[in-house]
This record gives sequence, structure tokens and C-alpha cells, in this order.
Amino acid sequence: MKQRRTIVITMGDPKGIGPEIIIKTLTSESISNLLPARLQPDQAVLADRHSGGSEFSFLVIGSSGVLSQTAKTLKTTFNPVLLKKPEPISKEEGDIFLYEPVTAEKSRGGLDYILTAIDVMKSHPAAALVTAPVSKEGVNKTGFNFIGHTELLAQKTLSRKVTMMFVAPRLKVALVTTHIAYKKVLLYLTTDKIFSTIEQTDDGLRKYFKVAQPRIAVCGLNPHVGEGKAFGNEESKIIEPAIKLARERKINCTGPAPADSIFHRAVQGEFDAVVALYHDQGLIPIKTLAFSEAVQVTLGLPFIRTSPAHGVAYDIAGKGIANPDSMIEAIKLAASMGNQGGSLFGAD
Amino acid sequence: MKQRRTIVITMGDPKGIGPEIIIKTLTSESISNLLPARLQPDQAVLADRHSGGSEFSFLVIGSSGVLSQTAKTLKTTFNPVLLKKPEPISKEEGDIFLYEPVTAEKSRGGLDYILTAIDVMKSHPAAALVTAPVSKEGVNKTGFNFIGHTELLAQKTLSRKVTMMFVAPRLKVALVTTHIAYKKVLLYLTTDKIFSTIEQTDDGLRKYFKVAQPRIAVCGLNPHVGEGKAFGNEESKIIEPAIKLARERKINCTGPAPADSIFHRAVQGEFDAVVALYHDQGLIPIKTLAFSEAVQVTLGLPFIRTSPAHGVAYDIAGKGIANPDSMIEAIKLAASMGNQGGSLFGAD
Repeated sequence: MKQRRTIVITMGDPKGIGPEIIIKTLTSESISNLLPARLQPDQAVLADRHSGGSEFSFLVIGSSGVLSQTAKTLKTTFNPVLLKKPEPISKEEGDIFLYEPVTAEKSRGGLDYILTAIDVMKSHPAAALVTAPVSKEGVNKTGFNFIGHTELLAQKTLSRKVTMMFVAPRLKVALVTTHIAYKKVLLYLTTDKIFSTIEQTDDGLRKYFKVAQPRIAVCGLNPHVGEGKAFGNEESKIIEPAIKLARERKINCTGPAPADSIFHRAVQGEFDAVVALYHDQGLIPIKTLAFSEAVQVTLGLPFIRTSPAHGVAYDIAGKGIANPDSMIEAIKLAASMGNQGGSLFGAD
Repeated sequence: MKQRRTIVITMGDPKGIGPEIIIKTLTSESISNLLPARLQPDQAVLADRHSGGSEFSFLVIGSSGVLSQTAKTLKTTFNPVLLKKPEPISKEEGDIFLYEPVTAEKSRGGLDYILTAIDVMKSHPAAALVTAPVSKEGVNKTGFNFIGHTELLAQKTLSRKVTMMFVAPRLKVALVTTHIAYKKVLLYLTTDKIFSTIEQTDDGLRKYFKVAQPRIAVCGLNPHVGEGKAFGNEESKIIEPAIKLARERKINCTGPAPADSIFHRAVQGEFDAVVALYHDQGLIPIKTLAFSEAVQVTLGLPFIRTSPAHGVAYDIAGKGIANPDSMIEAIKLAASMGNQGGSLFGAD
């Protein structure tokens, strides 16, 4: 019997584009291909290729009312099996499930859907989590100090170190620092943080992306990596010691490399991932190359977690024009990352 | 009679890839197309399209010995007309000229070829200058304090303000600051500098790129433009006042915009150019999208100046494997930028 694995999806901010992209995604052909139960034999072959032979079910954690209303606006059919407890039961009952821990109004900008999902994931670590966007501001005004999904997930799972990685079709970028003001980056950029990001990137490439011998490049901080300390010395002071440490652990690590040319080299196939030192250094190449398809991955959690690389997009929410590609890619990536085996949530 | 315009090319560092890419470029088909004298009638049509109807001659300023030796290594023929003074004489004498002010050994890493070219350009501002790369370190060890071509050109032409712009097939980026250490960028980033870069970008787009109503986007400094001052306040403190000033001068200017997504929007056609605040913010998208074709342009000089966007590449110099694409694009761009008319160097 085939494995059956569950992908848990949080609805995100009820006022953002989360509900819309979730419905567009779960009714899209490329995601139906992950649901072999419904497929004809020739489609099943395709599905196997996408999912690595696994069968999937989806558990959305969000608001039944908002999702129904969104489906109506989109003139589409979305009929998940409503659950009283957040656990899919059996293959016969369906593929797409919905659990509503609180209504949209009480969800604190979608925060409660994330908190419920974290509880689910802690009991079922072989499932994968895909999160639709919430707004930092939207959550914070409910009185909860929210920095971001990544930070909340790390805290609630007691994960010592996590790494935010972005995945585009030909480029993977891991960040050493994330949501930090330009002028404060240097306060957070330490040899230890750079080293642990390299290490976690190496580990993630092996574990989730089946790269047997990862080749990692690390960006410099200054233009032309400082041109022999003419413009900045952080390369020799902070970055080189981290690369040295990584090499001592037998990690294949290049750098510090000029940030303007290293992403091109990675896209050309020279590296499996690039470690960027600050948010825009890593996100500029990812979004310039793959604005719609880029996916965020959190490395270092006890389970798989991906998400679209975009935000709540209040400006276009409710208009039916949101592009679901990043959510589709996030789910496909979560499905493929799970192929490393392990016990299964919802296996039957 | 057609206009005949001269493109002056400096050889760059004799030990870098300059000599090789110059020979590869001047013997390439796409550059021969700028030399209508040699063409068959059907090719002349193509040439007209490339050059806007002008005829071109080339004046290389560099070392005769190094260029001959390089041609030999490349097994190609390169026979420029040798000049005693740096002035092409007549169409009948040829299309490609060479002037050698000093030998390679005495050229201070190619610096003297630049200084000679600046003198030529000052007497013949309707010519265009294309510079092959030199090495800051290579020039500085001869005792001359060299920061870069752009700075030297600005100084020698008494240009109050110049702007470094990079041009890729679907993206133009202008830089507010250039070769500055990451941690010093904030010392150089002023409202006045941002405003004058916007203004010079607007002017350059109109004058050299025939954009009637330029649309310019300006990057923010912090991730997500600071998310309401949660991570940094330079957006409201420094950048917004510059945009306000620009709008008061009727410049169509958007921003500050999140740096990770604005380049994608420009590539999609929403903006004619993006103003980036620091070197890597602007160079990462340019080189990730168009590593080989990117060209640098200096706005604000009394003449047109372009150059390849790469450096001396000592590691591959002399091996015959250097890619001339950026030099070819630099020359084609200089040729097309010159179409705004004016008096001509070498007209006959």
C-alpha cells in the first residue's frame, strides 16, 4: 500500500490573498496531480512523478465562512470535508479537509490558525506545513508580539537555530540575517551565525533536496568583497573564519564571493545554494529571477515547512486576481521534500 | 554624405582581458556592421539599423605590441592603421586606428591610455569613449591614486556630478553610491545625492535613450522598506524627501519601493530605470539577469562613455577564453546613444 501523507495548510490573514490562493491552488490541475485517488491510470503515472510515489491529503486550517465566500467570488467549487478535530481520518472520506479552530474574526489576523497548525505538526511531524501569508502589523495590533512565521515556529518547537531559505527554479538562497534594518545588520552578523547557516544549508540540501555533495557559496558583504580591504574588512574579519570552520567540517564551501556575480554562477550550476548575509542581498536575485514561483523553506524545524515568498497583498485581496503560482510551488516543494521517508500522519 | 563618428576605445590593463576582448570585438560581425564602408549593400541596411544611419570609425588607444601579440595568440588578423597623432584622418585610410602614447610597460597599468583618451575626448566631445577594464590595485601600485574610471573622468572633465548607470537588455539601474563599504553607505547616502541621481537618470533617459516620459523607481534601503519603521527609518528620513523634490521638478518618480521586488517590476516594463542606493543593491539584479551583456554608462560627463560591466579578470587573461559580449554591447550602446546629433570627430 502506498504511503499517504498530509500537507497542513494555514489560511493566513483572512483579509489577505491567502484564502484565494489556497482555493485556486487546491482546485488547480498541478495539485490535483498529487491526489492519486481521483486520477485515471495515465494521470497516476504523472502524479507519481510529481509526488515521488506518495499519495497526499490536505488539511486546511482556517475559516470555513471566508473560504466558502471566496469560492463563491471565484465562481468555483471548494467542498473540503469539515473536521471536528484536526486529523484526517481515512482515504475513503476524501482528500481535502478543513478544520476551523476559531472564526476569522477571532483568529487574530490568522495567528490562531498558525498556532493550531503548530500543535498539529508537533504531534504529526511527518506531515508538512505550508503557510499562507499573515501581516506582521495585522497580528501585532491584536496584542501578540509577532515577528514572523519563521521566528514563531522556531520558538514554539524549541528549535535552537533555523534558516530561512528561498527556492527558485535554478537558485537556492539561505539567509544569515532576515528582517533587520540595513544599519543593524552588522550587529547581527557574526562568524557563528554565518557558520551555522552554512551548516544548516548543507544539511538541508542533503536531507530535503537529495544533493549528495552540496556545493555552497557564501556572499561577501562589501562591493567586490572589499577589494583587498579598500572598502570594508568584514570579509576577512567575520566571513572567512566561518568558511574556514565549515571546511574543517568537510563542507564544500566557496567564498566570500562578490555578491553581484555569485548568483549568476549558482544559476549556471556551479553551486547548489548561496548563503546571503542580509535580506535584500538574497531576496533581490530570487525575486528578480522568479517573482511568481519563489518559495520559502524553513530549515532546522522538526518538520517540513514551506510558504509562498510573497505577503498578504491587501491591495489586491478579494479581487480574484491573485497569482497562486508561489503557493502551488510551495505545496509541490513540500511534497517533494517529504520523500525522505519517516512515519506518516494520516497513513492508512 | 553620411555622418562619420569615432568611438575611442582604451585598451585597459595590458595584463588583463582588455586587449583580448577588444580584438575579439573589433573582428566580430556585430561590430563590423557598424563599419558600412566594408559592407555589401544588403549588409548596409542592417548596419543602418544598428547605427541609426551613422558610419563609425574606431580609435584604439593602447599598446601596439600587446595587441599584435594578442592577435597572434587568438590566431586572428588585427591590422589597425597606426597613427602618430590620436586623430583618424579620412574614410579612405581605414576604419580602425591605433594610437600608442606609451608602451604597455610604461602605461601604469593602462592608466596613461585613459589619460590620453580623456584629452582626445575633451577636444572631440562628439566622439564616444569605451573603456576596457583596468585594476584599481594595478594602477595604484604605480603611485597614482586611482579610485575608478568614473571618478577619474569626472575629475578631469570638471563634472560636478556623475551617475554610474548599468544597462541590461530589459533593465537600467543607476547607483547613488558606488564603491563604498557596506557600513559606510549611510554616511554617503544623502537626500541631495539621491535627488541628483534621480535627476541625472531622468535627464540621461531622455537624452541618450529617447525616453520621452521617463518612469523612475527608487529603492528603499531596509527590508520591506522598513515595514512602517519597524526595521529602519531611512525611507522617510532620507529617501522620501528626495522623491518629493524630484516630483516637484515634474519627474515621474515612484518609491521608496521594496528592493527585492522593484527590479522584477522594471523588467516587466513598469519603469524605465531603477535608482539603487548602493553598489550591490543595483549590481545584483543586473548581473544576475544579464551577466555577459551588461554595460556600464557614465551620465553627467560632457561626452558619451560606456564600458563593459566586468573587471580585468587576471585569472583568465591570456588564455583566449574571455567573453567579449559586454564589450560588444558597450560599443553598440555607445553607437546608439550618439544618435542625438552634434558635431563630429572624424567626419569627412
